[in-house]
Amino acid sequence: MTPGPVEADPRVLRALSTPVIGQFDPEFLNIMDETVDLLRYLFQTENRRAFPINGTSRSGIEAVLCSIIEPGDKVLVPIYGRFGYLIAEIASRCDAEVHTMEKAWGEVFAPEEVKAKIKAINPKIVAIVHGETSTGQMQPLKEIGAFCRENGSLFVVDGVATIGGVEFKTDEWNIDAAITGTQKCLAVPSGMAPITYNERVENILLERKKIERGLSPDSENSRQIQSNYLDLSQIQDYWTSGNRLNHHTLATSMLYGLREGLRIIQEEGLEARIKRHHLHGKALVAGLEAMGVELRGNGEHKMPVVTLINAPEDVDEANVRSTLLNEFGIEIAGSFGPFKGRVMRIGNMGNSCRKTNILHTLGAFEAVMIQHGVTVNRGEAVQAALGTYAAEEKAAVKS
Amino acid sequence: MTPGPVEADPRVLRALSTPVIGQFDPEFLNIMDETVDLLRYLFQTENRRAFPINGTSRSGIEAVLCSIIEPGDKVLVPIYGRFGYLIAEIASRCDAEVHTMEKAWGEVFAPEEVKAKIKAINPKIVAIVHGETSTGQMQPLKEIGAFCRENGSLFVVDGVATIGGVEFKTDEWNIDAAITGTQKCLAVPSGMAPITYNERVENILLERKKIERGLSPDSENSRQIQSNYLDLSQIQDYWTSGNRLNHHTLATSMLYGLREGLRIIQEEGLEARIKRHHLHGKALVAGLEAMGVELRGNGEHKMPVVTLINAPEDVDEANVRSTLLNEFGIEIAGSFGPFKGRVMRIGNMGNSCRKTNILHTLGAFEAVMIQHGVTVNRGEAVQAALGTYAAEEKAAVKS
Repeated sequence: MTPGPVEADPRVLRALSTPVIGQFDPEFLNIMDETVDLLRYLFQTENRRAFPINGTSRSGIEAVLCSIIEPGDKVLVPIYGRFGYLIAEIASRCDAEVHTMEKAWGEVFAPEEVKAKIKAINPKIVAIVHGETSTGQMQPLKEIGAFCRENGSLFVVDGVATIGGVEFKTDEWNIDAAITGTQKCLAVPSGMAPITYNERVENILLERKKIERGLSPDSENSRQIQSNYLDLSQIQDYWTSGNRLNHHTLATSMLYGLREGLRIIQEEGLEARIKRHHLHGKALVAGLEAMGVELRGNGEHKMPVVTLINAPEDVDEANVRSTLLNEFGIEIAGSFGPFKGRVMRIGNMGNSCRKTNILHTLGAFEAVMIQHGVTVNRGEAVQAALGTYAAEEKAAVKS
Repeated sequence: MTPGPVEADPRVLRALSTPVIGQFDPEFLNIMDETVDLLRYLFQTENRRAFPINGTSRSGIEAVLCSIIEPGDKVLVPIYGRFGYLIAEIASRCDAEVHTMEKAWGEVFAPEEVKAKIKAINPKIVAIVHGETSTGQMQPLKEIGAFCRENGSLFVVDGVATIGGVEFKTDEWNIDAAITGTQKCLAVPSGMAPITYNERVENILLERKKIERGLSPDSENSRQIQSNYLDLSQIQDYWTSGNRLNHHTLATSMLYGLREGLRIIQEEGLEARIKRHHLHGKALVAGLEAMGVELRGNGEHKMPVVTLINAPEDVDEANVRSTLLNEFGIEIAGSFGPFKGRVMRIGNMGNSCRKTNILHTLGAFEAVMIQHGVTVNRGEAVQAALGTYAAEEKAAVKS
C-alpha cells in the first residue's frame, strides 16, 4: 500500500512469463502496434507517438528532456515537492538554463503565478509534475497548458503518479509531452516508462536527428542529442515508421506485461477506473479521520491515490511502518526532504486499490497505532470506511 | 536461433511472474545482495561493484562511458563491426575526443596494432567489443588489457554477446569495467544490463559525484555526470553501501528473472556452460560444412556462439529467413552494414544452445535451402552434427 511500486495485476504477472520472441517477428510488431493504440487511449491523445522507454519512470522523463533541450535553452520548472527537483536536476544535466519557482511542500501553484513567470522568462519549455507523491498534492494543469500553447512554450508533464488512476487529458490540456510509469496506477511492475508527444516535439527531434555510426556512417548533426540510449529521434523509428529497424533490443517480457496492463485498463474503462481510485481514496480518508489521526494536505488539491498522515508526537514513524510490514505484511511509505520522519504515506493505486486492501490496512494501522501507545478512536476506522462504501452503493442503485 | 534475444530459461520465465515487493523490503535487499554475488561469479571478478542497469544492454555501455568520460577525454575505440561503432557513437555524445581504428568486417586486431595506437595517443580510456555478433569475430583481450594497465588507460569491454557462453575473465584480463546483456548467453529476457567495475573507475565516479537536488539541495559538482538516469555514482549507493537509498525504483520483475538466470549459471557451473556453448557451436559448424554451404569467418577468432553463412548467389537471404520462420518456427538473423543482405547468422546462446535445437535447425535449414533451389549435400548436415556429439560422448567416457 505504498505510492508505488504496487502489486501487479495477476494477469500482468502471467503475461510476463510468455516465451520470448524475436524483435522482427511480425507477431512482435503487432504487439508493439497494439501497445501504441492502448497508450493513446491511456494518455487521451491523438498523438502519433506513444510508446514506452525501456527503463524506469525517470528514464522517460530524461528521454523527453534530453531529446528536446539544447545547451542554453530556457526551462521553467515550478517545484512543489521532490520530483519537481528531479525535473530541474535532469534539465540542468542537459545544460539548460534552468529557472525554478518553489512552493512550500504541501501546497500547489495558482495558475496565475506560473503564468506570470512564463511571461517574465519566456521559456522554451515548462516542465512540471502532475501529482507529487512526496507531498500528496496535485497541480491543476489545464490553465497552465493553455497559456503555454499561447506563449509558444512546450508543456512537459510528469504524470508518473497519476495517469491511469486520476483524470489526465494530454490533448485537451495542451500537453506537448507526457510521461508515466508502470508501477503505480497501471499495476504493472517497474521497468518501463510510457511517453507520448505531439508534432511540436517531433519537429525538434527531426531537426536534431543523427543516425548512429553503425547504421549510417555519414550522418552528422551538430545539434545531436546527448544520449544515445534515450535518443527519441532514433527510438521512434522502431515504433511507428516504415522500416522499423530497431534501435535496441526491446525489453520483450516487460512489453508483454505493459500490454496486458493496458488491456485491463481498456476493459475496465478509464472513467470507471478513475472513479474506483477516487472511491477507495475517499474510504481510506474517512477511515483515518474516524480513527482520529492527523492527515496532512487533505484539501482541495489532495491526490486521490496517496494519503499523508502526520507521525504522532513521540512516535518513530519508521518503527510504525516496520511493525505494519513485519506483523501484518503491509508496506506503507515514509517521505523525503522536509517531510522525512514526519509523515507516513498510504497509496491506493492500481491493483492495490480495492476494498479488501483498504479495510485490512485501516484495521492493521489502528492496531499498530495502539501497540505504539497512540490514543485513537478504537473500532471506528473500518466502520467509517464501510459507511463510505455503503453510501456509494446506495447512490449507484439510485442512479 | 538468433544471436539474441534468445529463448529464456523456463525457470526464468516463471520467476518473472513472482509478485512485486517494495524497494526497501528487507527481502528485496537480500535479492539484490544475492544478485551482486552471482554477478561477481559471472564476471569472474572480486570487484565490490557488480549490479544491473535498468535498461537494455546499451544502457549499460552508456552508463559506464558517460559516468567516466568528461568533455575532451581521449577515448580509443578499435572497431571491427557494428557494435564498435556504437561505442564510438556513445563516447562522441559524451563529448569525448574519440579516436578510432578500424579493421575490415570479419577480422580482428593483432594486439600489437592496438598497443601501438595506445602508445601514440595515450588515451584515458580504451573501449572495445569482446565478441561482434555482426561479424561473428572475437577479439583477444588479455594482452591489450595488460598494456592498458601498464599505460594507465582504463580498459572498458562490451561483453554483451559473450559473457556467460564464452570465457571472460574481468580481473585476470585487467578489465576495469565490463558490460553484458541478459538476452544472449544468460538466457534471460532483454531489459537489464549487468555491469562491473573496479576501484579505478569508482574513484572517478566519486570525484564527479553530485547527489540530485531532491535529496541533497546543496550538492554541487562542476564535473557532474551528464545523465541522471545512468549516473553510476548515485546508482551504486543503492546496491552496496550503508544507507541503500534508492536512486530509482528498480525493475523488480526483471531482477527476479536475472537472479534466477544467474542461479542457473551457478548450478551449471561457468566452465561446464562455456564447454556446452563450444560443443553446440562445433556441431552446428560441422553440420553446415557437411551441407556444403559457405561459412564466413570460420577461423581462429570465430565466436563459438554465432555462425555466419554467406547467402548463396541468386538467393534473397531475407526470403530464406522468412521461410524458416513461417514454415519451421525458427528465427535466424541477417546482419548489418557491409554484411547486410549477404550474410545469415545463426546463434547458439543460452537456453537455445542445446542438441535438439541444433539438429532441428540444421534439418530445417537444409530443407529451406533445397526449397529455394540451392544445391546442397542432402542428408549430410544432421549426420555430421550427430557425429560431433557422438565423438564428444566417447571422449567424455574415456576421460
